[in-house]
Amino acid sequence: MIEGVLFSIPCITALCYQEKEGFMYLGVGGFCIIIGLLMRRKKPKNDVFYLKEGCVTTSLSWIFLSFFGCIPFVLTGEIPFFINALFETVSGFTTTGASILSDVESLSHCSIMWRSFTHWIGGMGVLVFLLAIVPMSGGSHINLMRAESPGPSVGKLVPKVKQTAQILYLIYFALTFMLFILLLFEGMSVFEALNTSVATAGTGGFGIKNDSLISYSPYIQWVVTIFMLLFGVNFNAYYLIIFRQFSKAFKMEEVRYYFIIIGTSILIIFLNILHMFSSWADALRHSAFQVATIITTCGFSTCDFDLWPETSKTILVLLMFVGACAGSTGGGMKVSRFVIMFKTVMKELRGYIHPKSIQKINMDEKPIPHEVVRSVNVYLITFIVVFVSSVFLISFDGNDLTTNFTAIAATINNIGPGLSKVGPTCNFGFFSPLSKIVMIIDMLAGRLELFPLLILFHPSIWRDGK
Amino acid sequence: MIEGVLFSIPCITALCYQEKEGFMYLGVGGFCIIIGLLMRRKKPKNDVFYLKEGCVTTSLSWIFLSFFGCIPFVLTGEIPFFINALFETVSGFTTTGASILSDVESLSHCSIMWRSFTHWIGGMGVLVFLLAIVPMSGGSHINLMRAESPGPSVGKLVPKVKQTAQILYLIYFALTFMLFILLLFEGMSVFEALNTSVATAGTGGFGIKNDSLISYSPYIQWVVTIFMLLFGVNFNAYYLIIFRQFSKAFKMEEVRYYFIIIGTSILIIFLNILHMFSSWADALRHSAFQVATIITTCGFSTCDFDLWPETSKTILVLLMFVGACAGSTGGGMKVSRFVIMFKTVMKELRGYIHPKSIQKINMDEKPIPHEVVRSVNVYLITFIVVFVSSVFLISFDGNDLTTNFTAIAATINNIGPGLSKVGPTCNFGFFSPLSKIVMIIDMLAGRLELFPLLILFHPSIWRDGK
Repeated sequence: MIEGVLFSIPCITALCYQEKEGFMYLGVGGFCIIIGLLMRRKKPKNDVFYLKEGCVTTSLSWIFLSFFGCIPFVLTGEIPFFINALFETVSGFTTTGASILSDVESLSHCSIMWRSFTHWIGGMGVLVFLLAIVPMSGGSHINLMRAESPGPSVGKLVPKVKQTAQILYLIYFALTFMLFILLLFEGMSVFEALNTSVATAGTGGFGIKNDSLISYSPYIQWVVTIFMLLFGVNFNAYYLIIFRQFSKAFKMEEVRYYFIIIGTSILIIFLNILHMFSSWADALRHSAFQVATIITTCGFSTCDFDLWPETSKTILVLLMFVGACAGSTGGGMKVSRFVIMFKTVMKELRGYIHPKSIQKINMDEKPIPHEVVRSVNVYLITFIVVFVSSVFLISFDGNDLTTNFTAIAATINNIGPGLSKVGPTCNFGFFSPLSKIVMIIDMLAGRLELFPLLILFHPSIWRDGK
Repeated sequence: MIEGVLFSIPCITALCYQEKEGFMYLGVGGFCIIIGLLMRRKKPKNDVFYLKEGCVTTSLSWIFLSFFGCIPFVLTGEIPFFINALFETVSGFTTTGASILSDVESLSHCSIMWRSFTHWIGGMGVLVFLLAIVPMSGGSHINLMRAESPGPSVGKLVPKVKQTAQILYLIYFALTFMLFILLLFEGMSVFEALNTSVATAGTGGFGIKNDSLISYSPYIQWVVTIFMLLFGVNFNAYYLIIFRQFSKAFKMEEVRYYFIIIGTSILIIFLNILHMFSSWADALRHSAFQVATIITTCGFSTCDFDLWPETSKTILVLLMFVGACAGSTGGGMKVSRFVIMFKTVMKELRGYIHPKSIQKINMDEKPIPHEVVRSVNVYLITFIVVFVSSVFLISFDGNDLTTNFTAIAATINNIGPGLSKVGPTCNFGFFSPLSKIVMIIDMLAGRLELFPLLILFHPSIWRDGK
């Protein structure tokens, strides 16, 4: 079984590196391809992937990928300390965008490009990428997809999973390209536009300037705002629009709630920060940008929201946990999970009042299976357990509670900036190596939706595997 | 239906007041008795209480009780502002112990006595108190108990609920009396000892001095520590011990976990704060006292833990949410809920690895019914919803995140002190009236375990009632 796992890892790595130009990158890329070919010769005994193997494969791929991905940073001497380089790479692949660098502009172009590009790969999921290209047997695809895709349920859009992966990537690529063109129009250089568009597409948030997007024009900030929101929508909605099922697309409850939450948050923050800006247009732009960047877990910034009033900060912290729609490139706990939870509570309340009536929870006019509701509940509990133990572990560094709390919130939800010492103008460099490792695990756990990573810690996985 | 509800309220109020001496108190007490008698003449059409009516009765009783309870404070002019008086009374009845008074010692003796006594009444539950005395028909008792008792399940200790209530009160009274005697030995005055013992018994935390328990001797602090922990144990354990079923009592998983959590926390905090004190005995005493006061949600303090290192503060904040055992006088989310949640997560992880095996969650060597697991999950979600909206609402006051977060944590879990501006040496007086009302609702919601109070906000309760 373990052999079957190992077989897929270097292939992905190799595939990623082949596309990359660069001096050191070519060397590492070549090395990976050689390992990949060697591994490939060890044919696995069993080709079919079950859910368990799917989870293990995904988790291990992400870990190995991050490991190989950080080697160039170390070799070029741009991030000499290994843990820092690993933090930066994991932050890239998981589309978190939290950085330990205080001076981004001093990096070489190809390192910046690689750093932004990790977002784009991570955004859609490494294995979905692989699925679109590599042929595989039987029901293996769907089990891999289920382990990697964000959100409670993977809709099989078309009968063949491989085709689904290709369609998703097509939408992803088309949207990124549109953004790229729109940014070029405003006079950005190709390099800047490419970096910004891939970082937005993956809802990552690595900026190429030290001040993120503060120095760009309002036009660019608006374009990025709109595209961040678009990348936060469930991609199934785009699929439906392409096939002209408009009414069905607009009926998707998750997407509707997503825009309701965004609208309300922007309005409250706008009114709350109005007095801080000279014109209402500025206030509106900044509030819209920050809400978009936080709810899609992108993590760009146009101003230092750590200085905003407490109400606005509280809303932003809450949005960190909400996250984007399931089936988008964003992180967080996903809007659909919250909708399901809210409906569960309402149902329970009704159950108290009318104990004999039987209640069903509906979504998109279909009842939600009991299994989904249960797994959402369990997800929430697990999330809290992981969250709380992480806050506890990094508290040994002696920073204040707001820093610790929002640092973990920002990493586990794959956002990037938090409040206080990890605010938008700061970076994560000052944490101890132990705290960085905790946050690396959190980023991976958040991106893979907890369970695939957590089962790696369960002893029986390793016992069975041998 | 509503008539049936109203009938019980003034009786309780009257019963409470009859026991109280005092000048103004007598007047208010007399007034309540008159209303009580008037209400009693309106015989309800239906004597039987279902779960729904149980919930409504409980919630309304608590609200009316608090309302009448705060009148003396206003009339004597000691807390002239009505919202403040209400906050103080609710804080008493819900055994929170959060105070808006900066100078407790200036209160009259009878007001202090009444303030501490609210803890004792609130500790065991107003209606359990009523049940022990008033005769009622059919299955009404258990539905009332279920709405009021802390924790996921009410163990019917003996077949008759009324008898159960009497046994519980007997244990409660005996323990309080033991504490009272032990405190008298150390030379406390009767007034001080009585106040301290009822406040400890209810795990409330109103001190009679401005500095809570800081100025008392180490002996008294140790005695209070031990009794706080004892009052946080599930009372069923005492019941089993009385009836000589020792082995069964020591097998109770919840109680075991409770002491494991306490032991671990004390050890970590002890090591963490060792360097701050001159002797290890002092450090041990302070760490034991603070852990006990927080996990049992009592809220006394022997030193300002807001100045402790970040790790200790984080542990204390976590313990705030854990709370005491179900079936004790403490608040919080209860140890048993956490044990069930933890087991659910472990079960889910095993389910990922061995998808075909059927897993059961056991506790005390019996499988937990599916309904209990589900209600624990729903409880957690509801808790988070209420918590988050409360933090949001009080954020308008413009205090920092740590203050807001721990203030709500301290009120909804019925603890008392939080961190930063609501730390052990401070009080809640500076909040705006809106925030105070939010916290009053939170205290009641936390004490009644959310649902009984929340259904009051559901429109159909009022529609059906007419």
